[in-house]
Amino acid sequence: MSEERTEISEIGEFGLIDHLNEKIIIKHISTIKGIGDDAAVIEAGDHVKVVTTDLLLEGIHFDLSYAPLPHIGFKAVAVNISDVAAMNAIPKQITVSIALSNRFSVEAVDALYAGINAAAEHYSVDVIGGDTTASRSGLVISVTAIGESKKESLSFRSGAKINDIICVTGDLGGALVGLQILEREKQVFLANPDMKPELEKYSYVTGRQLKPEARMDIVHELRELGVVPSSMMDISDGLASELFHICKASNVGVTIYEDKLPIDKQTFDTAVELNLDPITCVLNGGEDYELLFTIDQKDFEKLEKHPDIHFIGHVTKTEEGKYLVTKSGTAVQLKAQGWKHF
Amino acid sequence: MSEERTEISEIGEFGLIDHLNEKIIIKHISTIKGIGDDAAVIEAGDHVKVVTTDLLLEGIHFDLSYAPLPHIGFKAVAVNISDVAAMNAIPKQITVSIALSNRFSVEAVDALYAGINAAAEHYSVDVIGGDTTASRSGLVISVTAIGESKKESLSFRSGAKINDIICVTGDLGGALVGLQILEREKQVFLANPDMKPELEKYSYVTGRQLKPEARMDIVHELRELGVVPSSMMDISDGLASELFHICKASNVGVTIYEDKLPIDKQTFDTAVELNLDPITCVLNGGEDYELLFTIDQKDFEKLEKHPDIHFIGHVTKTEEGKYLVTKSGTAVQLKAQGWKHF
Repeated sequence: MSEERTEISEIGEFGLIDHLNEKIIIKHISTIKGIGDDAAVIEAGDHVKVVTTDLLLEGIHFDLSYAPLPHIGFKAVAVNISDVAAMNAIPKQITVSIALSNRFSVEAVDALYAGINAAAEHYSVDVIGGDTTASRSGLVISVTAIGESKKESLSFRSGAKINDIICVTGDLGGALVGLQILEREKQVFLANPDMKPELEKYSYVTGRQLKPEARMDIVHELRELGVVPSSMMDISDGLASELFHICKASNVGVTIYEDKLPIDKQTFDTAVELNLDPITCVLNGGEDYELLFTIDQKDFEKLEKHPDIHFIGHVTKTEEGKYLVTKSGTAVQLKAQGWKHF
Repeated sequence: MSEERTEISEIGEFGLIDHLNEKIIIKHISTIKGIGDDAAVIEAGDHVKVVTTDLLLEGIHFDLSYAPLPHIGFKAVAVNISDVAAMNAIPKQITVSIALSNRFSVEAVDALYAGINAAAEHYSVDVIGGDTTASRSGLVISVTAIGESKKESLSFRSGAKINDIICVTGDLGGALVGLQILEREKQVFLANPDMKPELEKYSYVTGRQLKPEARMDIVHELRELGVVPSSMMDISDGLASELFHICKASNVGVTIYEDKLPIDKQTFDTAVELNLDPITCVLNGGEDYELLFTIDQKDFEKLEKHPDIHFIGHVTKTEEGKYLVTKSGTAVQLKAQGWKHF
């Protein structure tokens, strides 16, 4: 090995991923899509399987001081189901591996698995395997989800076409604001353990952080309505960051409108209370696990009346760039700050 | 949650796995085999996919003070390929997730991936996905491997029949003895950093520990010879422990013969030097990643001349128990000590 030392923080998480992926060569024709989308796609006779995996670590992805173990188990499954949903596929199986230190009792593992099994039931997936091992320090959870689809029903990041309508489900920014509240109340508690955390009035935003839902309901509804999104992703790193991914993969630009961005009232009010700009939370807050997708204009009327799908803008030519049109009518360039772990 | 606290060590790793699996319900007909074998099996049109996953943690599964990063990357892939081999299937795709602390430079990640990519090349698998994240402490690697097979070519743990011949590939005990040497030399080095570790004369056993091979060569040869093992496993926890798994899954007993057990001369000599009983190393040493399988007697002559397949005993009725016949002709009951992480 050379003597050089480049810090990972110098190139960032996405930089590291790009750097590692440069060296990967796909050999098998059964690999339809490798790295670069929400899930990989492999051939499976008359249909295809999608495969996605996430690795979650205590102290990085969750904090046991405020996240109950059943919620952590549920979320570990849900974030993978969300990646299957983002391919417009139906999840069928998961594997769950956990590493535990001796700080965890059998009862604690049961609480974690109560959440994992509840999520498996909720999303109708079979737990088909995994690994259980010791850990020197914190809890580690690795989930792999496998879904199914007809090949022609898949939605990739790369399919957005000029003039397509950009859609998002639910509302955004809640999970980030919820995390800030949980962190604030943790500090209050640490400073004075007799103080009871004030969480009731923040139940919506803390729920968005602690127990996100994968939007399989939307995937099923799109199927019923006969709509295949031209491109789709789930919003795990923040709306702006995900729009950048779609622009890059589809070689397009986007224009979105501030007044169309969906934000819940509690998210808005709590952001203001925390001195955060609500629109920044919507654009850059991670972990909402809503779906971002584009549709052909001809599909608009099929979705127009849907109470939980919002039409936030449209796809443009690459050279038109990526813009947010503010309420005052000014077009400002979008920045993708994303969600940084490194 | 109740106030009770049961330590995981009270029920052990296998006890914990059994305890967790009791609550798992399989819902999808596309799930052919869930938890309980080397890999899960799911339906895929005209063939089946096998899926297996392993979670490897620094300080538990590998020690960076003597294991070079490329070897760790290679081994993380190989141990999963070994599980695909143990199903008598052909590996096609892997996902690789890693968690890293800021102790790791981009160059260190490159060294790790050099091993991962070398293994992907060696076993002809595509790296189709993964996750890269931060870690508060050590390196964590999670690999999921997906393989393919015709359904009728699979070998499960549950297929061993009375009078089948028990076969093992390669030689056993080397990885355990190699680990003891690496640990001994680490202590010598820690006590006196000027001492250069004496590893040359132990290159075979340390190689068995640091860079194990998944026996895909055997899987391909069995296919060429038209032999489908009636049952098969890979030897990751030790021969005795794996024989217990086959006996339980197949509802049979086994008799094996001490003089038939394959052990390399360096493994034998080093075990003696370390005051370890060589046969105990063969029976209870983990991480050799050789294949243990059973064949119908009619297939014996097809394999008889194979230089790397050893016929160590035969399958008996459950009530005949599990026995090792020593060189002196005494039958002693087998004990499965296995490989304990907890």
